Amino acid sequence: MRSSTRSDIDPFIVMDVMEAARKAEAVGRHIIHMEVGQPGTPAPQTARNAVSGALDSSAMGYTVALGLMELRERIASLYKDWYNVDLDPARVVVTSGSSGGFLLAFSALFDSGDKVGIGAPGYPSYRQILTALGLAPVVIETAAENRLQPVPGDLHTDLAGLLVASPANPTGTMLNADKLGALIAACAEQDTAFISDEIYHGIEYEGRAVSALELSDDVYVINSFSKYFSMTGWRVGWMVVPEDHIRRVERLAQNMFICPPHVSQLAALGALDAKDELQGNLDVYRANRALMLRELPQAGFTRIAPPDGAFYVYADVSDLTDDSRAFAAEILEHAGVAVTPGLDFDPARGHQTLRFSYAAATADIAEGLERLKTFMQARGAV
Amino acid sequence: MRSSTRSDIDPFIVMDVMEAARKAEAVGRHIIHMEVGQPGTPAPQTARNAVSGALDSSAMGYTVALGLMELRERIASLYKDWYNVDLDPARVVVTSGSSGGFLLAFSALFDSGDKVGIGAPGYPSYRQILTALGLAPVVIETAAENRLQPVPGDLHTDLAGLLVASPANPTGTMLNADKLGALIAACAEQDTAFISDEIYHGIEYEGRAVSALELSDDVYVINSFSKYFSMTGWRVGWMVVPEDHIRRVERLAQNMFICPPHVSQLAALGALDAKDELQGNLDVYRANRALMLRELPQAGFTRIAPPDGAFYVYADVSDLTDDSRAFAAEILEHAGVAVTPGLDFDPARGHQTLRFSYAAATADIAEGLERLKTFMQARGAV
Repeated sequence: MRSSTRSDIDPFIVMDVMEAARKAEAVGRHIIHMEVGQPGTPAPQTARNAVSGALDSSAMGYTVALGLMELRERIASLYKDWYNVDLDPARVVVTSGSSGGFLLAFSALFDSGDKVGIGAPGYPSYRQILTALGLAPVVIETAAENRLQPVPGDLHTDLAGLLVASPANPTGTMLNADKLGALIAACAEQDTAFISDEIYHGIEYEGRAVSALELSDDVYVINSFSKYFSMTGWRVGWMVVPEDHIRRVERLAQNMFICPPHVSQLAALGALDAKDELQGNLDVYRANRALMLRELPQAGFTRIAPPDGAFYVYADVSDLTDDSRAFAAEILEHAGVAVTPGLDFDPARGHQTLRFSYAAATADIAEGLERLKTFMQARGAV
Repeated sequence: MRSSTRSDIDPFIVMDVMEAARKAEAVGRHIIHMEVGQPGTPAPQTARNAVSGALDSSAMGYTVALGLMELRERIASLYKDWYNVDLDPARVVVTSGSSGGFLLAFSALFDSGDKVGIGAPGYPSYRQILTALGLAPVVIETAAENRLQPVPGDLHTDLAGLLVASPANPTGTMLNADKLGALIAACAEQDTAFISDEIYHGIEYEGRAVSALELSDDVYVINSFSKYFSMTGWRVGWMVVPEDHIRRVERLAQNMFICPPHVSQLAALGALDAKDELQGNLDVYRANRALMLRELPQAGFTRIAPPDGAFYVYADVSDLTDDSRAFAAEILEHAGVAVTPGLDFDPARGHQTLRFSYAAATADIAEGLERLKTFMQARGAV
């Protein structure tokens, strides 16, 4: 059957790693998972209680397209708690995960062929979703001295949009208020729509993550219940849009999604009451991060920038390999640790990088680091 | 902020009706809802039990993009049960409702500007999703003598795709095997991708709905757990794609959705065991349909074609009004019955049509029909 050129997108290379790990486990090997981009914890107990309580009392039909008003109000109040920002709940759009946010934002902002800037390394789906919608991703090769984040000097004048993430995947680096503000201002000057992916907000270690909404109302902000709230599989997130875009996004959401999953919206409402449990998850990430920063260099992975947030370490392994894919396969085979080759995040330079996730339990992370040390010693790298 | 022209889509006119109904209820009026396109029943008990049982035993993280293999296998076996078709589960893609299916199908098949044929009257979101993706919907004004379904003679040779629904929304009419086969053959001849929306399958009264998969493997089929399985708000559906499109759709699904909601996939697995409860729902629709077909003509709505399936009656009211929107508002105000003006389904001719839904409980439908009779008598129409 005929097919579109816009759907000629790259496969995820990490999927090959995951499939190889699955096969190894199927024949009885024990694998430590440092390739996955999701918490090992379930949705908070309060979230599960909310679902349990509603199963027999609510028909859970369609909600309105922008989501349950109570949930939009609670999300708006998060901006007061987290950033001291007063946010009109009318500007909050509940989405089917941040994925739904990207589809809505790109559709609302860009026309076929429009150029949209994204940093490399970065979340691979940015590039693929833009392509799938008939838009033109423009990959900005970020510099190590900018902690692998875009800077105003990187912007082409013909960009219809710029998408940044802070904390970023795969690097965990953040943009402080000055740097984020400079990007927003540079975009505003040339009518480039600014989209801020804030999905890792709440998972931060040294400083506080700054929201684009602290600096401007004329931005799109995308967030999710997947990471900090530990609800990946529930597919529920949110987006904050400028006031003059609410109706436009509502019409798109009505048609493209009808509504986000009702049950997941109820779970999200419950999750907003789980502060202690979520703080507990965060304590685990913090302990894992300290382990990683101490022991990865001992294992010979010395070229890493301390991540400000998220649960990833991105390592430059150019002193160790020119083929991160083969290297990741070697690590899986000989160390029993699954890691992600950088090619998904940076097609041009990712053959010399790896991403290590530390979202798993601390005991697993410790075991994984031991295995990496043993493997690298045997390899003669340390 | 800048915005795209592709997002300049029409608002839903039915939303105005729903908002007016909500306002009337807020001041204490009792409204009968014949405007909604969803069952009044919750997800089947077996679906809710499945969720309840999994809440504390599964982390419910991401599933693979194409959905849980057990669910794909169970869906494939439905094709044996319903149509005597042997279907490879690998061709089944679990989606975030049929909405997710449309986004995936259109992205996989069509490039910016490609023309895609859709019948009018028809589900309004076809047109809007195509537009939002930078594609070009081509509205085919169907003929009453074809029971408001497209026929091969309607096809332009430059169509990249054709989308049909049987049973259709808003008319409830079906395409039999001959008519469906003729459309599929005509499309195959001119390399027009054929997409069959089968979301109302299972809700059929006189004959059996024919799946496009009984006639060809080279089609896209979209279905959902929303209607027959009574799970609208759960946002879970499925799509069957040609074998040579599986990987393409998988890559799109990984990037555009990551996965359908895990909890809803578990609920869907449970719903597949709810045959008796779903048969009970169907008995209600059948009784409601009989009431509608008997009493709508008595109320003066005489120009209706008996619907083969779904839970709608589409009425030609050209003898009563030239402004279906004002007429629907009048019915709401004076009869206390919410109905949908045809303009959402057919921008060109819908000013002279109304859609009545009979998905509510039988007592409500009976009460609504009484109110309609009283109103129309007072109006002098009968």
